[in-house]
Amino acid sequence: MKSLQVRFVKRPTGEPTADTFEIGEAELPALGDGEILVRIIWLSLDPYMRGRMDDKRSYAQPQALGAVMQGGTVGQVVESRNPKFAEGDFVLGMFGWQSHAVSDGAMVRKLDPAVAPLSTWVGVMGMPGLTAYIGLLDVGEMKAGDTVAVSAASGAVGSVVGQLARIKGAKKVVGIAGAEEKCRFVVDELGFDACVSHRSASLRDDLKAACPDGIDIYFENVGGPTLDAALSLMNPFGRIPVCGMISMYNTGPSTEGPDRLPSLMRRVLTDRLKIQGFIVSDRAAQHQKAFIEEVGGYIRDGRIKYREFVTEGLENAPRAFAGLLRGENFGKQLVKVSDDPTLG
Amino acid sequence: MKSLQVRFVKRPTGEPTADTFEIGEAELPALGDGEILVRIIWLSLDPYMRGRMDDKRSYAQPQALGAVMQGGTVGQVVESRNPKFAEGDFVLGMFGWQSHAVSDGAMVRKLDPAVAPLSTWVGVMGMPGLTAYIGLLDVGEMKAGDTVAVSAASGAVGSVVGQLARIKGAKKVVGIAGAEEKCRFVVDELGFDACVSHRSASLRDDLKAACPDGIDIYFENVGGPTLDAALSLMNPFGRIPVCGMISMYNTGPSTEGPDRLPSLMRRVLTDRLKIQGFIVSDRAAQHQKAFIEEVGGYIRDGRIKYREFVTEGLENAPRAFAGLLRGENFGKQLVKVSDDPTLG
Repeated sequence: MKSLQVRFVKRPTGEPTADTFEIGEAELPALGDGEILVRIIWLSLDPYMRGRMDDKRSYAQPQALGAVMQGGTVGQVVESRNPKFAEGDFVLGMFGWQSHAVSDGAMVRKLDPAVAPLSTWVGVMGMPGLTAYIGLLDVGEMKAGDTVAVSAASGAVGSVVGQLARIKGAKKVVGIAGAEEKCRFVVDELGFDACVSHRSASLRDDLKAACPDGIDIYFENVGGPTLDAALSLMNPFGRIPVCGMISMYNTGPSTEGPDRLPSLMRRVLTDRLKIQGFIVSDRAAQHQKAFIEEVGGYIRDGRIKYREFVTEGLENAPRAFAGLLRGENFGKQLVKVSDDPTLG
Repeated sequence: MKSLQVRFVKRPTGEPTADTFEIGEAELPALGDGEILVRIIWLSLDPYMRGRMDDKRSYAQPQALGAVMQGGTVGQVVESRNPKFAEGDFVLGMFGWQSHAVSDGAMVRKLDPAVAPLSTWVGVMGMPGLTAYIGLLDVGEMKAGDTVAVSAASGAVGSVVGQLARIKGAKKVVGIAGAEEKCRFVVDELGFDACVSHRSASLRDDLKAACPDGIDIYFENVGGPTLDAALSLMNPFGRIPVCGMISMYNTGPSTEGPDRLPSLMRRVLTDRLKIQGFIVSDRAAQHQKAFIEEVGGYIRDGRIKYREFVTEGLENAPRAFAGLLRGENFGKQLVKVSDDPTLG
């Protein structure tokens, strides 16, 4: 059995380019006892993958050179020598950027397509949704009456943050996004109170106008000038869950002055701000069950909406990933690797 | 009745200077019904006072121009028209930089000199001690086995942080101080495992050698290069309670590049650090009782030691305060305003 694979062959210095990846077929090993063969249907592309491409100390091992790019996927079992899985089962696993995979079934979860569409298990029902849930409620300690601002507001995480904040009784939910259509979407479709563009020269004033009582929680996905604008508006006892820094992933941290750290620390002290980084996997076990029950319910009854941005074909994954880092996706970035038999 | 007063007459731009203050007598009003007249014995000088001198948004009202400098004091009631207080009672109150004060008794607490020496109620048993307790245990979430580093280690707050960490089962307690005698003191007298000097050109390497397993809690009192060194050694899930930024109080935040904020935020994300500012008064009500019981016990049985740095005479308070900001004190900075009758 052959698998079409996207392998990581060269660490990028800035944006991933054509020579970052190599696409080719590889022969999969014959199934051993206890193993399953999975056909990948949905591949999730997520900003964290850029971090893995750097060869530096991080919360996870760097992506190995020459290996298949890692990534979360939904697939279907096409052959099983594992009693826990039957042919035809839908499964969630970290099978990576490829068309087929052999697995011993460890860390593979069976999915019931009647509960939620398959693709959502790597989106709103999956890691991005759980990230939003944990970041807003656990790290962010959101309370009713808070003003919540979230960057990358139309993305997989940000869109859930805002809708969840709305459901939990936020005084105001304000998104920050790039394109105007994204801003319209989060207000008109997702029910945010307002959305401002990080491309605007008046970002800080726009954000201030949208948050007349200041910001209690700024959910940080992007870094850069958006962080500066939000910081300047934080209320006493404000919380900044740091989920991602998309704007820095390609370029690395700029060190061009002025130095903003001393004034940040002064704000932290004066206004008793909390700035806290988190990674969903550290806290997933603790929150997974409540998340699936609660957010699953909101999704089924339509209180939480989601938007997917589907790229067809594994061979287009590298381009789609570069676009994701530039914010060209509009909604959760997915790659449709093969047909989803649950869709009409 | 006349009171000798240190009044705040000019906002300093850097260090407080001779013209920041004015010293003179003022006639106190006659005692009204419900009021007490207090003779001040001990005046506490604390770094936070410098922040109050700036006319900018902060957690407290700026110190008013022309008014007596605010500050925590211990005194004795010399006349009472308030049934809750008798002549001779010792009291704790915010009576400010002066020799006598008239008060209606609100926010004034009676002290039992048998429980602890009077001066300690503005030191190890008072606001600085409680600050250490709250910062280490509540904000810092200290657990047994943590490596704890604390700046301004021989000071009123830092010395309690380190000793409390030792009692609570820290793996390592490392101080950061300026003068060598302060370093020797926290190791030899207070039982810290090590102490490094922030004046050393090899601060970062010294700190690394003292914390071979990294730092779990960095208790921030000073800012500046000490923060950089500690940050670089933080372990995953590390916590930085931000209690003060003494090194910035006079100069204000420098903005000279390179910009360290992006790399800080990247560290926060990658290592899931928590940086949180706190002010003791926000959390005092919640912790005061447990603190007095627990730390009071440690002080009585000698497990927590304290050192006082006494300046004699109210007229020397301005000079003592400038010295405090430069780190010239060695231990808790006090001004002895008048005789303490409980001392031999």
